[in-house]
Amino acid sequence: MQRVAIAGYGLTKFRKSNDSLYTLACESARDLFQNAKNLSQQDVETVLVSTCDNEQYTSSIISEMLGLRPKISHRIENMCNSGGNAIISAYSFIASGLCDVALVIGVEKADSPAARLEWDISRGSFKHPAHWAAMFAKSHMNAYGTTEEQMAMVSVKNHDNALMNPKAYFQNKITLDDVLYSKPVVEPVKLYDCSAPCDGAASLLLVSEERAREFGDQPVWITGIGQRTVSASFSKVSDLTRMESTALAARDAYARAKIEPDMVDVAEVHDAFTICEILAYEDLGFARKGEGGKFAEESQFGIDGKVAVNARGGLIGTGHPIGATGIAQAVEIVAQLRNEAERRQVKDCKIGLTHNLSAAATSTTIVTMGV
Amino acid sequence: MQRVAIAGYGLTKFRKSNDSLYTLACESARDLFQNAKNLSQQDVETVLVSTCDNEQYTSSIISEMLGLRPKISHRIENMCNSGGNAIISAYSFIASGLCDVALVIGVEKADSPAARLEWDISRGSFKHPAHWAAMFAKSHMNAYGTTEEQMAMVSVKNHDNALMNPKAYFQNKITLDDVLYSKPVVEPVKLYDCSAPCDGAASLLLVSEERAREFGDQPVWITGIGQRTVSASFSKVSDLTRMESTALAARDAYARAKIEPDMVDVAEVHDAFTICEILAYEDLGFARKGEGGKFAEESQFGIDGKVAVNARGGLIGTGHPIGATGIAQAVEIVAQLRNEAERRQVKDCKIGLTHNLSAAATSTTIVTMGV
Repeated sequence: MQRVAIAGYGLTKFRKSNDSLYTLACESARDLFQNAKNLSQQDVETVLVSTCDNEQYTSSIISEMLGLRPKISHRIENMCNSGGNAIISAYSFIASGLCDVALVIGVEKADSPAARLEWDISRGSFKHPAHWAAMFAKSHMNAYGTTEEQMAMVSVKNHDNALMNPKAYFQNKITLDDVLYSKPVVEPVKLYDCSAPCDGAASLLLVSEERAREFGDQPVWITGIGQRTVSASFSKVSDLTRMESTALAARDAYARAKIEPDMVDVAEVHDAFTICEILAYEDLGFARKGEGGKFAEESQFGIDGKVAVNARGGLIGTGHPIGATGIAQAVEIVAQLRNEAERRQVKDCKIGLTHNLSAAATSTTIVTMGV
Repeated sequence: MQRVAIAGYGLTKFRKSNDSLYTLACESARDLFQNAKNLSQQDVETVLVSTCDNEQYTSSIISEMLGLRPKISHRIENMCNSGGNAIISAYSFIASGLCDVALVIGVEKADSPAARLEWDISRGSFKHPAHWAAMFAKSHMNAYGTTEEQMAMVSVKNHDNALMNPKAYFQNKITLDDVLYSKPVVEPVKLYDCSAPCDGAASLLLVSEERAREFGDQPVWITGIGQRTVSASFSKVSDLTRMESTALAARDAYARAKIEPDMVDVAEVHDAFTICEILAYEDLGFARKGEGGKFAEESQFGIDGKVAVNARGGLIGTGHPIGATGIAQAVEIVAQLRNEAERRQVKDCKIGLTHNLSAAATSTTIVTMGV
C-alpha cells in the first residue's frame, strides 16, 4: 500500500464578490502552485473538484483553464461534506496506484444551492439547517446543562482566531454579549451562533510516498481516514445529544492511525453552528460525554495540553464556502503541522485532524494527519 | 494491491416516465440485490452515485431509502463520463483498502441539465453536442472518405441489437433509408445518427478479491483502467479525425491489463452519435486509422473473430440516461462475460471493455474486464 502525503496547499481570501466559480478555483490553485515547490502542470495526474454548484463539467473546465491534462478528473458533491470526500478520493487514487500526484480543489459561491436541503419533506421548515442546530442545542442543554453562554464562547473564540487569519471572511472582534444579543434565528440559536456562506476556494496537492519530497521537504502524511453516513434525513436522527456519524467516523480514523484522541494537537472541526463544535468536542473524544460545554469554557483561555480547535477561525470565523470548507480545513492543518501558520501557529504540533460533516451531521468525514 | 471484481449488477428499463431520480436509482439497486446472491444491506460499505442532476446529497438520500449506512458516500459528476469515473472511484476505494464492498449507482432523468454544456462560450451554437458531432463527421469524411451510409449502418446495427435487449428504450427495427432520410440535425448528422436522452438507472457491485466469491461464483475482474481529460472546450480539439482522450486512455488501459486491442471480445463504446462509434473503432485499435467506416460495414454482418461492439444496442439503441450510461455499459460487459446476456449473448467472450466519454470526447474513461 502506497503511503499518501500532502505536499502543498492554496487558498483564496474568503469573501463576497462577483468573481465566478472558475476565477475562485483557479486563484486557489495558483496559490498552491506557489506553495508546492517545483510543481509543474505536467506533474498533475488527477484533478478533483469539490463543489455543490450546479455548473456541469467543472473539473474539466478548471483543468483546461489551469493548463492541466489530467488522467482522472471529476466533480464530487456531498453537500457540506464534499471536501472531505474529495480528499479521501484523491487519497484512494494514489494509494491504489492509479496516480502519484492529485490536485484537489474545493470551491463555492455564497449563493450555493447546498445552503438548504430541499429533499427532506419530513423536515418541513427544517430545510434550513438552523432548525436542526436548534434541536441539537436544546437536547444537549436539557440533558447536560449546556448553556447559551458556552455556545457563545465558541463564537467569540472562533472570531478571535479569525483575526489572526488574513484569509478569513470575518475580521471583527466580538464579545459574549454580541453573540447573546444577536438576532434570534431559531431559539436558542442566534445569528452569531451560525456560520455564514461566502465565496472561497481551497486547494490541496496529494502525492505518493515515492514523490513526497519532490515538491517540498515537509510532507504531511495522511495517517487515518474515517467516514460514515447514517442517513440523509434529520427525522432519522434518534439521539440529538450526539453526532452519531462523527463518533463512528472518528473511531475508524483513530484506529487506522493508531492514535488516541488525546494525542491530537490541532483540529479543524465543523462548527456550522456553535453547538456543532461543542458536540464535536465530545464525539471526537476531546471531552467526556456531557462536558463539551465545560470544554468550550476552558478552550477560550487556551488551556495548556489541550487540543487547539479551529485555529484558523473555523467555519464561524472564516466563512463557509460549502464545497471548499473540507479542503480549507485540511489546508489549515497542513500549514500548522508545517509550522507555516504565522500569527495563529500552535506550538509543537505533530498530529492534526479535520472533521467535515453534512446536513444535521448525517454524514461525516474525518482525516488524521501527522509529520 | 487488492484485486477488484464486479460481483453483481442491476438495471432499470430505460424509458420516459414521471418516476423520480430516487425511484429510478432504487429500482436498479433492488435489481442488483436480486442479482448478487447473499448480499445484505450490512455488506455495503460504500455508495457512490453518478448523476448530473442538480439534486443535492443524492448519495445519502438514496442510501437512506435503501436502508444502507455506508462509510464512504458521495455523488460524482463529469457529464456523460460520470459513470466511468464512479466505477474507477469505487475501484480505488477497494484497491486502496478503504473498503471491500462498494455499490455504484448511475441515474439520470431525460431532462438532465447535462444535455448541453453551457460553459463553453467559444462554442457559440456548439453547446448542443450535435454540432461537434457534425464537425467530427465532416473531418473524417474529408480525410478518409467515410460515408453517411457507413454512419447509418452503425445506427441500424445498434437498433437491431436493442431489439434483443428488453431494457432498451428503443424497440424498433430501422433500415438504412430510415436513417438517411431522418430529420437533418446538423449536416451530415441526422436524427437517427443521435442517441436520445431518457430516464434510466444502472447499478454495479464492486468487491475486493477476498470477498469476490461471497455474492456469486462468477466474479468479473477489472483488469485495466485508463482515463484522460484533454480539455473541456471543443475549440481546443486540434485533430477532428480522432478522439484524442480515447486513444490515450485506451493505451493506458491496455498496458495496465497487459492486453492488445485484438484480444477484446466484447466492447461497449460511447456512440453518442454514429460518428463516435466509427472513431472509437480506430481510437480503441479495433480498426486501422481511416478504416472505421469500413469496419462499420463489416460489423453489420457480424464478421467472425472481430470484437462485438454495443451488443446491448449502445447509447443509440438503448437510450442515454447521462449519469447511468457508463454504469449500464459495464453492466452489459459483466452480463456478457458471465454468459447471462440471453438473446444477445456473444459466444465465448473472455475479455470486455467499456468506453465512456464526455463533451466532444474531451475526456474518456476506459475500463477493461476479464474472467
